[in-house]
Amino acid sequence: MSVWFEKHQATLEKALDACAKRYAWTAYQESPSSKIHGSERPAAGKANFEAMLGQPYPLKQPASIGQTGAEVSPYTKEALGITYPKADIPELYQHIDQAKAQWRQTSIEERVGLCMEMLHRCSEQLFENAHATMHTSGQSYIMAFAGSGANALDRGLEALAYAYKAMKDVPTTADWERQFGADGAAKLDKRYRLMPRGVGVVICCATFPLWNGYPALCASLATGNPVVMKPHPAAILPVALMVSRCREILVEAGYDPNLVTMVADTREEPATMELLEHPDTAIIDFTGSPQFGTWIEQNCRDKLVYTETAGCNSVVIESTDDLAAMSKAIAHSLCQASAQMCTSVQNVHIPAEGILVNGERVSYEEICQSIVEAVEGHLENPKNAAFLCGTLVDDNIYQTLDRLAVQGEQRGTILRQSGPYENPGFPNARTATPLIIALSNEESELYREELFGPVSFMIKGKDANDCLAAATRDARERGAITSHVYSVNDDFLEKAQDAYNVAGASVACNLMGMPINFAAAYSDFHVTGLNPAGNACLADLAFVTSRFRIVQSKVMRR
Amino acid sequence: MSVWFEKHQATLEKALDACAKRYAWTAYQESPSSKIHGSERPAAGKANFEAMLGQPYPLKQPASIGQTGAEVSPYTKEALGITYPKADIPELYQHIDQAKAQWRQTSIEERVGLCMEMLHRCSEQLFENAHATMHTSGQSYIMAFAGSGANALDRGLEALAYAYKAMKDVPTTADWERQFGADGAAKLDKRYRLMPRGVGVVICCATFPLWNGYPALCASLATGNPVVMKPHPAAILPVALMVSRCREILVEAGYDPNLVTMVADTREEPATMELLEHPDTAIIDFTGSPQFGTWIEQNCRDKLVYTETAGCNSVVIESTDDLAAMSKAIAHSLCQASAQMCTSVQNVHIPAEGILVNGERVSYEEICQSIVEAVEGHLENPKNAAFLCGTLVDDNIYQTLDRLAVQGEQRGTILRQSGPYENPGFPNARTATPLIIALSNEESELYREELFGPVSFMIKGKDANDCLAAATRDARERGAITSHVYSVNDDFLEKAQDAYNVAGASVACNLMGMPINFAAAYSDFHVTGLNPAGNACLADLAFVTSRFRIVQSKVMRR
Repeated sequence: MSVWFEKHQATLEKALDACAKRYAWTAYQESPSSKIHGSERPAAGKANFEAMLGQPYPLKQPASIGQTGAEVSPYTKEALGITYPKADIPELYQHIDQAKAQWRQTSIEERVGLCMEMLHRCSEQLFENAHATMHTSGQSYIMAFAGSGANALDRGLEALAYAYKAMKDVPTTADWERQFGADGAAKLDKRYRLMPRGVGVVICCATFPLWNGYPALCASLATGNPVVMKPHPAAILPVALMVSRCREILVEAGYDPNLVTMVADTREEPATMELLEHPDTAIIDFTGSPQFGTWIEQNCRDKLVYTETAGCNSVVIESTDDLAAMSKAIAHSLCQASAQMCTSVQNVHIPAEGILVNGERVSYEEICQSIVEAVEGHLENPKNAAFLCGTLVDDNIYQTLDRLAVQGEQRGTILRQSGPYENPGFPNARTATPLIIALSNEESELYREELFGPVSFMIKGKDANDCLAAATRDARERGAITSHVYSVNDDFLEKAQDAYNVAGASVACNLMGMPINFAAAYSDFHVTGLNPAGNACLADLAFVTSRFRIVQSKVMRR
Repeated sequence: MSVWFEKHQATLEKALDACAKRYAWTAYQESPSSKIHGSERPAAGKANFEAMLGQPYPLKQPASIGQTGAEVSPYTKEALGITYPKADIPELYQHIDQAKAQWRQTSIEERVGLCMEMLHRCSEQLFENAHATMHTSGQSYIMAFAGSGANALDRGLEALAYAYKAMKDVPTTADWERQFGADGAAKLDKRYRLMPRGVGVVICCATFPLWNGYPALCASLATGNPVVMKPHPAAILPVALMVSRCREILVEAGYDPNLVTMVADTREEPATMELLEHPDTAIIDFTGSPQFGTWIEQNCRDKLVYTETAGCNSVVIESTDDLAAMSKAIAHSLCQASAQMCTSVQNVHIPAEGILVNGERVSYEEICQSIVEAVEGHLENPKNAAFLCGTLVDDNIYQTLDRLAVQGEQRGTILRQSGPYENPGFPNARTATPLIIALSNEESELYREELFGPVSFMIKGKDANDCLAAATRDARERGAITSHVYSVNDDFLEKAQDAYNVAGASVACNLMGMPINFAAAYSDFHVTGLNPAGNACLADLAFVTSRFRIVQSKVMRR
C-alpha cells in the first residue's frame, strides 16, 4: 500500500461518498478569514507573492531556452516582471517520454495518493495562490481564495475520485476455467493492466486558471498520463505555483518530476499549437473561448478532447413571491467577478406583460428597475463592490462595453451604464460595473453570443412561454453552462426544467439568498457536454474512463 | 419497477458479478446439441429458415420504398432470394425522431429490462440464426450457433451490464444544504436526468454480423438512444431476425418499434454513407475493414465513434514443452472459420535457430512442418474440416490466395498450398484450406497487413527477441486483436507480456487444448482501443459512459 494513499484514504473515501450521494461537502477550507487561519499565514502568503515579483520564477524544468512571460496585474496595471522557463517543446517531450514507463507501472493507489498529496500541498499555498490569481486573473481576494482556490481543489478531488472509481472497476487478476468439449478443461490466469493514452495537455483560461486545471491534472495524471500545463499568457503564476508543488512531491516520492511540466508563453509568441500538434499529445483539456474550443474539437480528431467554453447563460422570469430577493440574486450574478465567470448570467428574459409577484402584476419595466436597483445595492459599499466585482482580466472588455453602450434602434435601451468603481486598495484597478441593456426578443443578433464581461440584456419576450422558448433555443444552439428560472407556478417550473434539460442544459430554479453562480463540486455536474458550451462534464465517469485503456494477458496454467 | 427488469434481474446481477470478477460464465447455451435442446427445436429452426428463402422478409418498417437485398449462400452459391424493405432514410429518421422522447423518459430499469428481453428472445431463435449465419457469413453450423449466437449474446449482456452500472452511478436526486456567510442557509433539491446523445448507427460486418451487433445495440439502446442496424449487404438475414424480435418486444411493451430499425442495402446501392452523414446520427459503432474504420474515425468527428477493425494477429514461439499440442492449437486458429475471425492468427514468428522443446533443439523447419501437419490433422476428417473451417464469406478471398500462392524471391516459400475441401453436406460450398507461406523477417511488406482469409506466414526471425520485436512492432503499427506467445521461460514470458501490453495489445500465453481464437465475454476485454485494430474496448466502462449525458435541475426549497 502506498503511504501517500494511506495518508489521504479517508478524504478520498469521503469524496467518493459525496460524489455518489451528491450532498454538500468540501475537503478544503474556502474562507480566507484570519479567524480560521490566524494572521500569520495570510500575511506570509502575501509576502511570498510579493517576493516573487520582478524575479525569474524558480521553476527548474529541463529543455528551457531562455525565459518568457509578460503578465500584467489588473489591479496595478503594472507588469509583474516574473519570467518563466521558455520550453523547447520537442526536447521537453523527450524528457517527458523518459518519465512515462515508471509512471505507467506505478500502482493506482500510489498515483492517486500522490495526486491527493498534490491537492493537499496546493491547499497549503492558497494564500499565495489568491494573490497570484488576483494579480493575473483580476479576481477579488475572496474569490481568488475560494473559487479559484478551495472550490477548484474540490473539483480536482472530485475528478480524482471518479478516476479512482473507474480504475478500480477493473480487477487486476482473474481465474478463468471452463470445459471445451472433448478437449478438456482450460484454466487461465488472467492479468489486467491499465495503460495510459499519452501526454495530457491542459490549456487553462485567464479568468479561473485552476478551475478546470486541477480536475484535468488529476484525471490525466492519476490514470497514468504525464501532464503538460499550458497557462493562459495572462495568468501563468497560479499555474506555476501548482506545477512547482507537483514537481516537488514527485521528486520527494522518487518519481521523475517531468510527469508534470508547464509550458508558459506570451500572446506574441504562443506555444499552444505546437503542444496540440505534437504526436505524443493524446489528451487535450481545454478551457477558454468557444471559437478555439470548437476549432480543437473539430481539428484534433486523433486526440481525446474535453472542452469547457462558454454560452449564453440565461434567466427566465415567470413569477416570484419575493421580487427583491430574486432581483438581488440575479444582480449578484451580473456583478460577481465582473460577470467573467462561466456561470455568469447574461440574458434575462422577462415577459412583456410583466409577471405576478405574490399575485400582483409587476411590469417588465418595474422588474428591470428592480434588478438595476439591486445592482446598485451590491455596489453601494466600495469594499463590497471590490470583493464582489474584482477587476477586468483584459482591456478588450472596455471595447465591448463601449461598443454596446450606444443606444438606438436595434441596439436596445441602456438601463444602466457601465463605469469604473473605485477599488479601495488599488486606485489603478481595471474595473467596470454592469452595463444593462433592454432589448426586445427580436433583437437576438445582439444577445445570442457570449459577450465576455459585465454586460447583460433584459430581453422582453411576448410571454413566459416565449421567454422560455428563446432561452432554451439559445442554450441548445449557442450553449449554456448555467440557466435559471424564477417561477412560483409548479407547472411552469416542471415545463421549464424539461425544456432546458431537453435542450441539453442544466437549470436552477428560484435561487435566492445565495450566490447563484456557485457550482458545487461533488454535487453539481458542471457542464453537460450536450450543448455548444463544452463537450464534457467535469466531472463524471465519462470524463475519466477513456483516459486509460485495458490490456490483458492470460497464461494457461500448467 | 419494470416487469421486464424483474424478470431478468437475477441474470443481470450475475452478469455484473461476472464482469467485476471476470470468471467463466455464460448466460446462453452455446451448444446446439439435440441432447440439450431435443430434436424438435433444431429441426424447427432449420425449417423456419428454409421457409424464409425466396420471400420478402416480414419486417414491417415505415418509410419503405420497395425492396432490396442480394444475399448469396456461400454453401450453395445460390441467391437466398430474400428481400428486405428499402428505407427512405430521411423519412425513416423522422419516424425515429417521433420515438425519441418517450424512450428518453423511460426508466433505466425498464430500458435495461427490455434489452434483456431482446437478448432472451434472440436466444430463442439461435437455430434460425445459425442457419441464417451459415448461409450469409458462411460459418459452420456449430460456429454460427455458438460464436455468432450464444457467445455474441453474452457480449450483448456484458455491454448491457456496463451500461446499467454506468447509469446507476448517477443518483436521481440529492439534498444539498449549506451556509453562505451571512446570507443564511441554502437548501436545494437536486434532480439528475440522463439524456441520450441521438441516433446510434450500428454497422455490422459480413463474417460475424451480431458479434458486435448485440453489444452496440444494448449499449446505445439501454442508454436511451434509438438504434439503426446497418447489416453488411452479404449478411442481412441474421440482423433482420434480431431487429424483428426487438421491434416485437417494443410493441408488446407499449413502445414505438422504430426505436430499433434496419437499413438494408446491396453492394451496388450502398446506404451507409447516408446514415453516417445524417445530422441526427450521434453514435457510430463500426465493425469491418481497417480502411473504412479509419476513414470513419477521421471523418465523423462530430459523432461518437467506436470501431473494431482488424490487425496482424501474431504468434511468437520461443520454446514449449509440448510441440504437438502447441502446433495443434496454432493450426486450429489457422483453420477455424477459414481464418476469417477477428481473433484468427496470421503471422507466426519463429526463431531461425529453432526453439527448445523440453530441452531439445527443434529447427525452424521442423516447427513449420509440425504446424502444417497439425493443420492436416484438423482437416483429415471431412466432417471435422467442415465444422472447423466453414466456408469463405466472399469470392475475393480466392484472389488473395491465388496472388499469394506463387513462390519466388520476395514471395516466400509455400509450405502448404490452399485448396478446396469437400464439404459433406454442401458440394458447392465455397471452401479453402490454409495457405501457409515461409518468409524471412525482412519480407515484411508481405505480412504487415491483414490478408483476410486462410493465409498465414511462418516468419523466420533472427532469434526469439527479434521475433518479439517484429510482432510487437506490427501490433503497435498495424494493429492486433489477439496475440500469442509460447514459452516455458518465465523471464521471456514476462518480457513478452510487457512488450505486447506496451504496444497496446493483449496477449495469451501457452494456450493449448482449447480453441485459441476464443474470446470470453465477461472476462476478456475484447479489443484494447490502443492500437490500429480498433478505437474501443467491447466492453468496458468507456464503451458506455459517453453514450448518455447528465443534465440536472436544482430547486430551492421554500
